[in-house]
Amino acid sequence: MKKVCLVIGAGAGIGGSVGKKFALEGYHAALCRRSDAEGLNTLVEGIEKLGGSASGHLVNAVKEGAIESLVEEVEKIGPIDVVLFNLGAQIGNRSLDDTALKTFELGWQMACFGLFRLAKVLFPLMEARGGGTVLVTSATAAVRGNAGQHSHAAAMGGRRMLCQTLNAEYASRGIHIAHILIDGAVDAPDTLGKMLGPEMYAELRKTRGMEHDGLLLPEKMAETYFHVSQQHRSAWTHELDLRAFSDLAWWNHAP
Amino acid sequence: MKKVCLVIGAGAGIGGSVGKKFALEGYHAALCRRSDAEGLNTLVEGIEKLGGSASGHLVNAVKEGAIESLVEEVEKIGPIDVVLFNLGAQIGNRSLDDTALKTFELGWQMACFGLFRLAKVLFPLMEARGGGTVLVTSATAAVRGNAGQHSHAAAMGGRRMLCQTLNAEYASRGIHIAHILIDGAVDAPDTLGKMLGPEMYAELRKTRGMEHDGLLLPEKMAETYFHVSQQHRSAWTHELDLRAFSDLAWWNHAP
Amino acid sequence: MKKVCLVIGAGAGIGGSVGKKFALEGYHAALCRRSDAEGLNTLVEGIEKLGGSASGHLVNAVKEGAIESLVEEVEKIGPIDVVLFNLGAQIGNRSLDDTALKTFELGWQMACFGLFRLAKVLFPLMEARGGGTVLVTSATAAVRGNAGQHSHAAAMGGRRMLCQTLNAEYASRGIHIAHILIDGAVDAPDTLGKMLGPEMYAELRKTRGMEHDGLLLPEKMAETYFHVSQQHRSAWTHELDLRAFSDLAWWNHAP
Amino acid sequence: MKKVCLVIGAGAGIGGSVGKKFALEGYHAALCRRSDAEGLNTLVEGIEKLGGSASGHLVNAVKEGAIESLVEEVEKIGPIDVVLFNLGAQIGNRSLDDTALKTFELGWQMACFGLFRLAKVLFPLMEARGGGTVLVTSATAAVRGNAGQHSHAAAMGGRRMLCQTLNAEYASRGIHIAHILIDGAVDAPDTLGKMLGPEMYAELRKTRGMEHDGLLLPEKMAETYFHVSQQHRSAWTHELDLRAFSDLAWWNHAP
Repeated sequence: MKKVCLVIGAGAGIGGSVGKKFALEGYHAALCRRSDAEGLNTLVEGIEKLGGSASGHLVNAVKEGAIESLVEEVEKIGPIDVVLFNLGAQIGNRSLDDTALKTFELGWQMACFGLFRLAKVLFPLMEARGGGTVLVTSATAAVRGNAGQHSHAAAMGGRRMLCQTLNAEYASRGIHIAHILIDGAVDAPDTLGKMLGPEMYAELRKTRGMEHDGLLLPEKMAETYFHVSQQHRSAWTHELDLRAFSDLAWWNHAP
Repeated sequence: MKKVCLVIGAGAGIGGSVGKKFALEGYHAALCRRSDAEGLNTLVEGIEKLGGSASGHLVNAVKEGAIESLVEEVEKIGPIDVVLFNLGAQIGNRSLDDTALKTFELGWQMACFGLFRLAKVLFPLMEARGGGTVLVTSATAAVRGNAGQHSHAAAMGGRRMLCQTLNAEYASRGIHIAHILIDGAVDAPDTLGKMLGPEMYAELRKTRGMEHDGLLLPEKMAETYFHVSQQHRSAWTHELDLRAFSDLAWWNHAP
Repeated sequence: MKKVCLVIGAGAGIGGSVGKKFALEGYHAALCRRSDAEGLNTLVEGIEKLGGSASGHLVNAVKEGAIESLVEEVEKIGPIDVVLFNLGAQIGNRSLDDTALKTFELGWQMACFGLFRLAKVLFPLMEARGGGTVLVTSATAAVRGNAGQHSHAAAMGGRRMLCQTLNAEYASRGIHIAHILIDGAVDAPDTLGKMLGPEMYAELRKTRGMEHDGLLLPEKMAETYFHVSQQHRSAWTHELDLRAFSDLAWWNHAP
Repeated sequence: MKKVCLVIGAGAGIGGSVGKKFALEGYHAALCRRSDAEGLNTLVEGIEKLGGSASGHLVNAVKEGAIESLVEEVEKIGPIDVVLFNLGAQIGNRSLDDTALKTFELGWQMACFGLFRLAKVLFPLMEARGGGTVLVTSATAAVRGNAGQHSHAAAMGGRRMLCQTLNAEYASRGIHIAHILIDGAVDAPDTLGKMLGPEMYAELRKTRGMEHDGLLLPEKMAETYFHVSQQHRSAWTHELDLRAFSDLAWWNHAP
């Protein structure tokens, strides 16, 4: 029985690419997303064509009991050894007036409460098996709050602290939690592409994506996600950043 | 009509002391807490005996519409010029197993969502009057997550980012948001006293509170809260820490 | 005999304004700068005209023994109770190629080594008298390194850590060290004015200094410097930021 | 001609292990340390026995011109593609009184000025070749200053900012600078072993080094150092931490 890498938030960007990487390295990739069964099938079939093992799971993570059921379902395929928690709460910039209470709450439910619920149900299983890895895709909104990011930043900032409290309680018990700060635009048709529309997206890839790597390329990011999951327990990384060489770090301003 | 300082979370520690300070400086102190009408009356009467103006408001801040109604009610007394948001989510150390979903959610509702709701309803009023000040009592859980602090740290970490997004949107429109990191034990009978019980509390005050100031003294903290609220807008502080001289900073370990 | 506030780096901006504030509050202000005896006299006479006590001291702080002699000299006037360490290492943006080894070393000597030397000679005196306060004017270069800031950022970043090690060793022995992050342009003719030239400076004051307070105003900053020095030891601030209400925080980017 | 990995600070711990890793991956490892020709030979011969290519260089890095000559000398072997800057300034805990001016300066010269000098001489060469990688071994002293760490923390804190200014100027020109925060005790006979003495070191390895991995194991750390150097430029890591699973993160205190 293969070890399982569960991807919560498996679009055509980071989620799909990391799932594929783990599948090619011998894991079963359980790919989970909220909607678009067709897109999910495409990901699964793409992996299977390359000789990997994968399954697709449509789940609305914020629904009560949904994450809990997902873990139960996937554990029947095999033991979940790695989870990529890839849910975000980025909804673009919205003023305080334009951010409804429901929106703010939903951001927290997805990005922060979702990870807490996952840990509650999964960590006992992982601990009983001697350990596991949780890779959390984060954003600079977890470390600084820009204008218009009320919902996103509050959710991500809370989640970063949660990653630290989980790490403080579970690292010594074998569970490796890595908080991965993505600092820049990812070349992802499902998110960035949809946000910008096809024309602006194509334009951005041409200009910012100088020689195709001025944007963060998901398949390259996946290399580091995988490396972190394989680190020996004497030398674990809890936090790291990823950005394109041509991009300014979030803490920098142009001179 | 006096300017109002609204204290959300007015116990006998920081909240009560800051309220009293503002009352003695000429504000009306609107003191709000969830329960203990008697304790609240004691605070109000204490202020009135000193010649200050105060009112008490029993409010369960997490109830739908409660913060919104509170603002409406207090605005009838006078324009809210300063708010002390003093709600925390500290429930002591609890393992992941012992932290229920409801507990985690409640922490977020009080410490993080509560501030968002307050800003939604109050900032338009403040902006229309040319500005205002929001003082937020925070904790080191907002910047690092210790073991057993899942609920507290996730709520405080989210709120810290929210303070930054609010500041980014509203500072230039006249609203001063200050995030005050309390790093240490506060000499507060309502919280620390209840947590420890009367004997241990007395003992702690004797030992740690060397010459009575090895614990953070609320009436001394109130001096800085007040100063920050009076800073000229050309030189505002957004974040500062407060700790007793005899205490180790959170980032330090004993040599 | 009056208590002394020693200002190391007393120009017409922060240094002069803080010195004046302390003088008006009853301290003797010992104002020290490297050059411009005339400007220094102007500051001293300005304070004396207002009824305050002040003295001027021309010192090249990086010269061997200079800080040590200065402390000895000033202690003859009265016990140094507060020091404002106001030396920076800002030389504008310079590429790596254009930053000479000597320049990099000089930045460190002024901003970082200078504080270490001061602490070595002054802290034993302060401790013997039961305590004292060191206010350190810092910059965002202490917490993030922008392009072209090699010398400045390395010096300030090192100094910030030094402030923490000094605090860890000396806070419990009565010495209050406060690291004050200035995040924005200060309305200071001696530094900003000289850097920009009279025309651009006048222009900036008119545009950025909206209604005269879009730049950090030194006399307003001085209020907070003074407040921090007077905090009760049960509630000391070690780090705080100061910026104009209309300015973007360093961690923010325009939406 | 093989690409060269230059290790500045090549002892039997991180430096030697990273050098060996790069040599086994096809680089020439140029190992540089201040003293102990015999130990250096052992490292070189150990690599050669495994079929790798290596050379030893005895250099006192703080001597004027030393780093500059080293780069010139090593470039004759082959183009320096990767540098591990592994010089630290840890001298154990020393009070302010016990930290001489010379000691403080020496720490800065090694850990901070050394990297600046290296960048000045090496970056033009790397840039002309299209890029390169600089891996910097850092410590938690770069982000918080503990008591007794005056020299160490000031040097490391300055260097962290320098890494950011170098990154801001050179990342887009192809030079990848990675700041690697080592948070814990490394199982290194040359440093930890000498500091503790043979008996305490053996004892620590037995107790803290639970099943041999409660200490950071250099050969495992080397895997991550190497991975970072091979990251695709669309997804570079600038900062990451490394600690043993059983260790408390620096920001945590035991509950």
